[in-house]
Amino acid sequence: MKKHNFSAGPCILPQEVLKQASDAILNFNNDNLSLIEISHRSKPFIEVMDKAIDLAKELLKIPKGYSVLFLQGGASMEFLMVPLNLMKINGKAAYTNTGVWAKKAIAEAKKLGDVIVLGDSSDTNYNYIKKGYKIPVDSDYFHCTSNNTIYGTQMKEFPMSPSLMVCDMSSDIFSRRIDVSKFDIIYAGAQKNMGPAGTTLVIVKDDILGKTGRDIPTMLDYNTHISKGSMFNTPPVFPIYVSMLNLQWLKNLGGVEAIEKLNQEKSDLLYSEIDRNPLFEGSAAKEDRSNMNVCFLLNDSSKEDKFNTLWNAAGISGIKGHRSVGGYRASMYNALPIESVEVLVDIMKNLEKN
Amino acid sequence: MKKHNFSAGPCILPQEVLKQASDAILNFNNDNLSLIEISHRSKPFIEVMDKAIDLAKELLKIPKGYSVLFLQGGASMEFLMVPLNLMKINGKAAYTNTGVWAKKAIAEAKKLGDVIVLGDSSDTNYNYIKKGYKIPVDSDYFHCTSNNTIYGTQMKEFPMSPSLMVCDMSSDIFSRRIDVSKFDIIYAGAQKNMGPAGTTLVIVKDDILGKTGRDIPTMLDYNTHISKGSMFNTPPVFPIYVSMLNLQWLKNLGGVEAIEKLNQEKSDLLYSEIDRNPLFEGSAAKEDRSNMNVCFLLNDSSKEDKFNTLWNAAGISGIKGHRSVGGYRASMYNALPIESVEVLVDIMKNLEKN
Repeated sequence: MKKHNFSAGPCILPQEVLKQASDAILNFNNDNLSLIEISHRSKPFIEVMDKAIDLAKELLKIPKGYSVLFLQGGASMEFLMVPLNLMKINGKAAYTNTGVWAKKAIAEAKKLGDVIVLGDSSDTNYNYIKKGYKIPVDSDYFHCTSNNTIYGTQMKEFPMSPSLMVCDMSSDIFSRRIDVSKFDIIYAGAQKNMGPAGTTLVIVKDDILGKTGRDIPTMLDYNTHISKGSMFNTPPVFPIYVSMLNLQWLKNLGGVEAIEKLNQEKSDLLYSEIDRNPLFEGSAAKEDRSNMNVCFLLNDSSKEDKFNTLWNAAGISGIKGHRSVGGYRASMYNALPIESVEVLVDIMKNLEKN
Repeated sequence: MKKHNFSAGPCILPQEVLKQASDAILNFNNDNLSLIEISHRSKPFIEVMDKAIDLAKELLKIPKGYSVLFLQGGASMEFLMVPLNLMKINGKAAYTNTGVWAKKAIAEAKKLGDVIVLGDSSDTNYNYIKKGYKIPVDSDYFHCTSNNTIYGTQMKEFPMSPSLMVCDMSSDIFSRRIDVSKFDIIYAGAQKNMGPAGTTLVIVKDDILGKTGRDIPTMLDYNTHISKGSMFNTPPVFPIYVSMLNLQWLKNLGGVEAIEKLNQEKSDLLYSEIDRNPLFEGSAAKEDRSNMNVCFLLNDSSKEDKFNTLWNAAGISGIKGHRSVGGYRASMYNALPIESVEVLVDIMKNLEKN
């Protein structure tokens, strides 16, 4: 029996995508060769790369003037590439501090210039999103994290930035509509709503690059990868292929608009139960609650064993909270069916009754 | 019918490895979850990572005092990481120039310090390996490329280095015995003899690090990845898993000693025919011929169409030479069975007869 997979990431992918990926490992494109033993410069793989880029552009309605890249190294490598490509020598940037990943991005940028920290919610272990801060007009760019998986918070609106606007959308890209034209760089590790671990999506506005005066190492220069269509060196073939399949699945489902509605339904269902059921309590501020990662606590610790036994028996996996927050975290990425959320909610109700 | 896959890389992998990888995409570890939708911090994946590291250590007889890392970005990222981690401020390094990849490594190192170029064979389009050069004693390190896929040349012996010894073994690691203790850093993109594209093996001697005085970006510092066991951020799960399977396949086969013999047999078979058959000619210097990539030319261009028709009809793929060399290139990585080489040799003989 397939599990109810609430893993925080790498996370659940659609069953039909897994089936197609499994088949391609044995025989790709009916060429009697595996996807992973052909040249990345062969026509069949170039088609995969082109299709992945086109699907990302279509699903996110990316305007002209932006490049879509599939890189390696995860968001952590982007923490370095963003300041290298955008921060002027002796320049400065403004960063929100909304969690441990934001903090790592800040630390990396600080090695290259001044960093103004805004919207710092570390005072309450990042359980809310600060608003109303003012981004200095002389910043080279403003950087924020749209969704914080560990704490279950999500930016519902983005501030107007007087400078370039950069966002780490690793954990909620493709889950809701966004206006790409308001951003200059968006990046995301694939392993939540896009695909398996091993590739990073970067959406970058072409005309912002090459203006810092820095000598950027070849592999860390976005222009290297733009000029070679993400094929400067051998790309991560399999992660890109599965991302392509997954974006095609999303398109067939009705695209980002359709999945946004489904994600809202799942989220409403679980948060309603958390708020209704006296045994449970959400740990993030209500107005900042993430639709991707639902963090909650069990108020009555004497019922913990019982609760754990129940969800384990129901085939639920991956809902243990992050060690820095405790409690539970139900991650409900795009591919998680609402039926899995219903199973969890039923268990929460049963725990209250008994 | 499975093809005779002579692809230069990503390249052929053993059929049983592909089968196991395909199965794991549907159901990994009998947990009713896909390999690519579980946490990289889950016990089953930590076991994969540990096993991949242990197999690399065992197969290459890596001595104590070395760390084995699985990183991202391919050899091209190592072209940057090596000088960042080893070149002192205002330091210098010695590099051999044996092909286009060596040249890219040199270009990257030059951004950080002085580079002395040794063993430069660009005068004859890199068709041989220069020997007898002297590595300056005041170099921070010496860098070489063990095998040059495009030109079909291979270093049969490594010079004694008075400084640290670094080698890019992307295209022949695990194909022959090497004495790891003579090297300080060995790196290799996975997509030849180790696994699929998307991860890079780095073998690094621990006590050489942290001595340059440089402030190294977090993701580019080998110590970051050593301290976190290649789990500083989400690793490329699938490429590492398939590498582990492939190294297990190699171990079952008898290890590096056994595959070295098989590779020698394949290589002897094809080079003998090239030297015997008046229609063909090898393009690399005989003493430097690679056992991995066999580059050869057809002397009689009027027979080109016939030859291409014959090998195509026999199910051979991937033997077109690189555009910078022309002719043909038969890449014979570990997983290529000798039967595939026999098919190619038979076609060469038939072409001569008719």
